[in-house]
Amino acid sequence: MSFIVKNARYVYTVNSTDQVLENTTVVVRDGVIEAINPASLPTDIKEIYDGTDRLIMPGLINTHSHLAMVLLRGWAESVNLDGFLERVWAAEGAIMDKETCALGTELGAAEAIQSGTTTVLDMYLNPDATHPAAIKVGLRHVTGPIFFDFPGLDGLEWDQRIELGKKWPVMLEAMGGPEVPIYFMPHGTYTDSPEHLSEVAELAQDLNARIHLHVSETLNENNTVQEQYKKSPTQACEDTGILNVPTVFGHGVHLSESDIAIAKMHGTAVAHCPSSNLKLGSGIADYLHYVKSGLRVGLGTDGCSSSNDLDMWPVMRLAANLISIKHSPSDVKPTQLVRAATIDGAKAIGIDHLVGSIEVGKQADLIAIDLTALHLMPVHNVAALLVFAAGRSDVVDVWVAGKQVLAGRHLTTIDEKELRSRVSERIKVLDQVKVK
Amino acid sequence: MSFIVKNARYVYTVNSTDQVLENTTVVVRDGVIEAINPASLPTDIKEIYDGTDRLIMPGLINTHSHLAMVLLRGWAESVNLDGFLERVWAAEGAIMDKETCALGTELGAAEAIQSGTTTVLDMYLNPDATHPAAIKVGLRHVTGPIFFDFPGLDGLEWDQRIELGKKWPVMLEAMGGPEVPIYFMPHGTYTDSPEHLSEVAELAQDLNARIHLHVSETLNENNTVQEQYKKSPTQACEDTGILNVPTVFGHGVHLSESDIAIAKMHGTAVAHCPSSNLKLGSGIADYLHYVKSGLRVGLGTDGCSSSNDLDMWPVMRLAANLISIKHSPSDVKPTQLVRAATIDGAKAIGIDHLVGSIEVGKQADLIAIDLTALHLMPVHNVAALLVFAAGRSDVVDVWVAGKQVLAGRHLTTIDEKELRSRVSERIKVLDQVKVK
Repeated sequence: MSFIVKNARYVYTVNSTDQVLENTTVVVRDGVIEAINPASLPTDIKEIYDGTDRLIMPGLINTHSHLAMVLLRGWAESVNLDGFLERVWAAEGAIMDKETCALGTELGAAEAIQSGTTTVLDMYLNPDATHPAAIKVGLRHVTGPIFFDFPGLDGLEWDQRIELGKKWPVMLEAMGGPEVPIYFMPHGTYTDSPEHLSEVAELAQDLNARIHLHVSETLNENNTVQEQYKKSPTQACEDTGILNVPTVFGHGVHLSESDIAIAKMHGTAVAHCPSSNLKLGSGIADYLHYVKSGLRVGLGTDGCSSSNDLDMWPVMRLAANLISIKHSPSDVKPTQLVRAATIDGAKAIGIDHLVGSIEVGKQADLIAIDLTALHLMPVHNVAALLVFAAGRSDVVDVWVAGKQVLAGRHLTTIDEKELRSRVSERIKVLDQVKVK
Repeated sequence: MSFIVKNARYVYTVNSTDQVLENTTVVVRDGVIEAINPASLPTDIKEIYDGTDRLIMPGLINTHSHLAMVLLRGWAESVNLDGFLERVWAAEGAIMDKETCALGTELGAAEAIQSGTTTVLDMYLNPDATHPAAIKVGLRHVTGPIFFDFPGLDGLEWDQRIELGKKWPVMLEAMGGPEVPIYFMPHGTYTDSPEHLSEVAELAQDLNARIHLHVSETLNENNTVQEQYKKSPTQACEDTGILNVPTVFGHGVHLSESDIAIAKMHGTAVAHCPSSNLKLGSGIADYLHYVKSGLRVGLGTDGCSSSNDLDMWPVMRLAANLISIKHSPSDVKPTQLVRAATIDGAKAIGIDHLVGSIEVGKQADLIAIDLTALHLMPVHNVAALLVFAAGRSDVVDVWVAGKQVLAGRHLTTIDEKELRSRVSERIKVLDQVKVK
């Protein structure tokens, strides 16, 4: 957990001025960044990482996903939302027992780390099983109990969900792993009644938990909530007390000006998931407008049944590319998109005191990019290189809280081949699933 | 040039029914596909490629690029088209002598092949220098003389351009390399006068050449041509005889219904470059509408000063993602996007009798995808896996006309490290370029 990155060609700090340092040395002690370019190097740290030909940057932060659904990658193609749900629900019903939730999360965490993502805000069933699986792979895995009105595949009734919520902080602590906040995850305002949302909000306040839920992903969702409650999903969140605790909206594609004002007032964050939104035909969130309006906006991949991988690089690029639809190309600032994928994601989730930038005192969630790739030369603009040309395969080494979890593109924590066989074996169950 | 791919887990043929064959053997003799799953294997071919854990598909076809501009990757960020041109022209003026055009093309060809692209339709200055450079790396490089009214960086006056055009078929033949058609490349209807366009069209007819030019990339271009000639760029192409020879429109973002009808009548193709178009704020071509209207549409990256790499995978994914803006998600057919990046590109360029699918008698322009990557499992839908989850780093081996040009992700044709040093040395010139 202690090492020195020596002579990194670039250290992209993502500090408040987006400083990019050249030929730089970073000292990590016990998982924490102790010094950047110190006058003299500590003599007691023996592990040296050669930074020649490397760009070191903070690990990417995925603010909305359902990791276990990686098992359904490509399962629901060329369908509208109705057909999508029909196919996905049939498959989930067949395969997603507790053990398989853990298996899928393990695969998802592995894919995330290999692509340079060190933190994922992950909403799925059975967090007591998924969290240990993600921790085992080495991910900073932010999750918590899920809440919806109807009994789910996890077999829990409402009261049992509340019970799990009450126990979650102690369970989370006991499971160990990289430091993460406590989260509660009501599914959305169209799947949780106002009474239930209020109950979760109160519990969250009592236990210092944060909240993550789906909000305004589609116009159809907005219409459903408007019809039933005569208000927008955002207003429903405010009225039930959800926004009294720090909250991350998943998607937030269709927020009105009034929704934006409410979210801003409460410090609510949005997880912008453009590839999922486009693929499912949900629309395009006006990322730049949200940012200019003062919202915290991170980026997310969503689950792999919607958009088919957990790779944050194309999300960064797509988020940048989509800006010029409603704004000018001169409004596309590569530095801002790098922030979106790192420090802004950390702010959204509430972990910017821990990670999201390379600054003294922060935990060492770092990734190393191999600059010898031909598609990464020449370097005229470092931020643009990261947003528009770099990709998952350029990530060679990854550390989470100072622990090296990826070395030379291979996971240090698990046996990839063995994981592949377990996945191949388990997904055979889906051969039996009939969907029209 | 002769080898046998044995037991490929998948062979994605891109034949007329988009057949995906499992556990399949492909025999290549003298660069040509001789048999697929023959009853017995030829005994005189000793080179065996183990296809276990591999997906074999046709090489990707990039129908619009300016390879040498890879040297300006990230050179013009956060600018509108005016600022973009100002920055790019200043840099080109400083660096793009004939030798540097060749150097940039070599780097571009290397990047293209590493990402699984085997053919590029490349418009740039000094084709007599760029073509040998691309051939050296192993690319099927489709290019030809460029034509515009004003003297360019290549120092040629109009008459000299015509002279070069007359000599081009013989020069092309003499340079060798994988088989390609003869192309002439007038820059566009706003940079070539009607008289000049007619002259190029006549020359092309005489010499059995095809034509590639920029058409309707921006609304501003449409307006300029409309004001000057009282017609659309497509009409200008028709009226000057350009469309009497097989033509590929670069971009074609803003084609009217009447333009589409004209293009359809002449069998004109469009190179759809969505990432460049979004990044420069040019708009979004309605790909699906063009296809449904009967146009041939391939995909392209454009040059790296516009969109910052030569990677066709994100272009395929973006083209798919953008469909649902104007159409339904159920209209997004992954098989169609794979066709766009392969056989449809071949049809657009006029080389579908040679490449673009894996069928007996075609040249072996093949790529091998490593299916052991965690982000490529499970495989529920092969086409969706390619469009939405695979990427350049999954390409491990590449053959062009049966010659292996990439082996284990490394180029067999050139010394990558030596190329990197030549590029690093040459781009120092740009440190002197002052742009506001």
